[in-house]
Amino acid sequence: MSSAGPPQGAAPTGGAARSAVRGGQASVSSPFRIPVRVYYEDTDAAGVVYYANYLKFMERARTEWLAAIGFPLAEFERAYGVVFVVHRCEIDFRQPARLNDALMVSVEVLDRGASRLVARQEVLRDDVLLTEARVTLACVDAARFRPVRMPAPLARRLEIAA
Amino acid sequence: MSSAGPPQGAAPTGGAARSAVRGGQASVSSPFRIPVRVYYEDTDAAGVVYYANYLKFMERARTEWLAAIGFPLAEFERAYGVVFVVHRCEIDFRQPARLNDALMVSVEVLDRGASRLVARQEVLRDDVLLTEARVTLACVDAARFRPVRMPAPLARRLEIAA
Amino acid sequence: MSSAGPPQGAAPTGGAARSAVRGGQASVSSPFRIPVRVYYEDTDAAGVVYYANYLKFMERARTEWLAAIGFPLAEFERAYGVVFVVHRCEIDFRQPARLNDALMVSVEVLDRGASRLVARQEVLRDDVLLTEARVTLACVDAARFRPVRMPAPLARRLEIAA
Amino acid sequence: MSSAGPPQGAAPTGGAARSAVRGGQASVSSPFRIPVRVYYEDTDAAGVVYYANYLKFMERARTEWLAAIGFPLAEFERAYGVVFVVHRCEIDFRQPARLNDALMVSVEVLDRGASRLVARQEVLRDDVLLTEARVTLACVDAARFRPVRMPAPLARRLEIAA
Repeated sequence: MSSAGPPQGAAPTGGAARSAVRGGQASVSSPFRIPVRVYYEDTDAAGVVYYANYLKFMERARTEWLAAIGFPLAEFERAYGVVFVVHRCEIDFRQPARLNDALMVSVEVLDRGASRLVARQEVLRDDVLLTEARVTLACVDAARFRPVRMPAPLARRLEIAA
Repeated sequence: MSSAGPPQGAAPTGGAARSAVRGGQASVSSPFRIPVRVYYEDTDAAGVVYYANYLKFMERARTEWLAAIGFPLAEFERAYGVVFVVHRCEIDFRQPARLNDALMVSVEVLDRGASRLVARQEVLRDDVLLTEARVTLACVDAARFRPVRMPAPLARRLEIAA
Repeated sequence: MSSAGPPQGAAPTGGAARSAVRGGQASVSSPFRIPVRVYYEDTDAAGVVYYANYLKFMERARTEWLAAIGFPLAEFERAYGVVFVVHRCEIDFRQPARLNDALMVSVEVLDRGASRLVARQEVLRDDVLLTEARVTLACVDAARFRPVRMPAPLARRLEIAA
Repeated sequence: MSSAGPPQGAAPTGGAARSAVRGGQASVSSPFRIPVRVYYEDTDAAGVVYYANYLKFMERARTEWLAAIGFPLAEFERAYGVVFVVHRCEIDFRQPARLNDALMVSVEVLDRGASRLVARQEVLRDDVLLTEARVTLACVDAARFRPVRMPAPLARRLEIAA
């Protein structure tokens, strides 16, 4: 194999998170962001990113953010029997992203409660805001999808008052 | 924004290619590979990566490889009016990938002609081969999808005899 | 080929629209709906429909509704050089849909202007509301994605005042 | 709701299967087919159906065929604890499908064994063959994905010798 080596500059999806996971040092109050490259799979016949796919990009950013603050998704479900589901999403599509674009996708916690999180998310290209969303997540039990309190370690990490 | 910083270790999708692009130094004859993280979007209700999505991972690897040898996709189509399409794909699904897996996806050119490429591609997790494919690509004109000779600069880069 | 025959009862994606297209008789003011079957491709490892995929279902319903009132998508772009893009989407995910569910997806025009439409869309299973959305569409030119007035025949069909 | 009514002519995804399910009368030895409409979600920036999405179409046809011979997917997994996974796929992409195309997708069993099925699948537009595949499916237990014998009722239905 030709060695890939450590990427520099715009490191695509999740690179940042992966390193951050080690220390779990990412901030829970300031925006977190990951790079996302636009591939053919993301586009449609109008020549732009298909609108539902921005939600995929945003979920990647949330996943990497959770990992970065110390809660990798797979372990999370195994350890606590809960998952986060999107409860509500308000999304504005301002300008289209196109094939091969190098995007940045951010997540910032706006509000948090015992069983829910509200996040602001943005998709940017060269600091131009293409898409923005307000996403409400609910913590639910993995079997029945009923709202439950977040696991205590995560609540503490998010500084949610008991 | 909290700084993402240079990712270390397994840098997800395309990181390798991005750095390699600068010099266009990637080899055209030895395997090239990129890391891919498995997100919810990639999985299905059986708890594993949905079979069609491995083809997405493989196309990301091919795209980054083309960029790495100096032919970023978007410019390629604009400059030459051609695109690569998959003509045939033989794919073996040996073991399933799962949520949050850190995969490596490789591409290696097996054969090349005036208007086609044959590549071997693998999806690995910790050096275990999960999926492997033999993919035949055709260079076609972007308007009518008829086979055409590859642009001369790419043919030279791939060391295809005239 | 074993004959498929005319489907009865819950006919999946678009069946309704297809027949309606012939006469272009669908109402522009009352809800229109299509059946959608949930396949593995639509689900994720949490065992439910992946959240972004509801937007796909909703777009299928809008497409079939446009066809049903006499404006099949492909001809539309060719004839007028315009496309509809989603400008804003507010979506509430109330209950999850699961593998093999037989869903109904509706579209109802709430508001219309010279270059935009606002629609209410619902996803139902056995008359239980699973997901609902308010979607704002903009009519844009296909080349630059700038808002333009809807083509006159469509504006007339939608009874938009000149 | 404006009544959808029974679709006529090209009934999209699964309509055929739905009616056939009632009697479980579909043949297991002659081709079975379903109509599929191409939406924006299926296409990419090259203006054609994205190559991985043909595998989605083919899986829809297999799912509807299984339902049509009396084995709806969801019940199947619940009742027997097994799932079918794709083990190998050889696929030839001959001509591209485009936005709004009305396709037919077929499935025909070529070979069957105690724990596997080999199927031939085609994607057609107006009887022109666009894509064809040979797909090998394995029956595995849902927990560990190890090959197991097909449930006896299905084996009988498929006329597999004990």
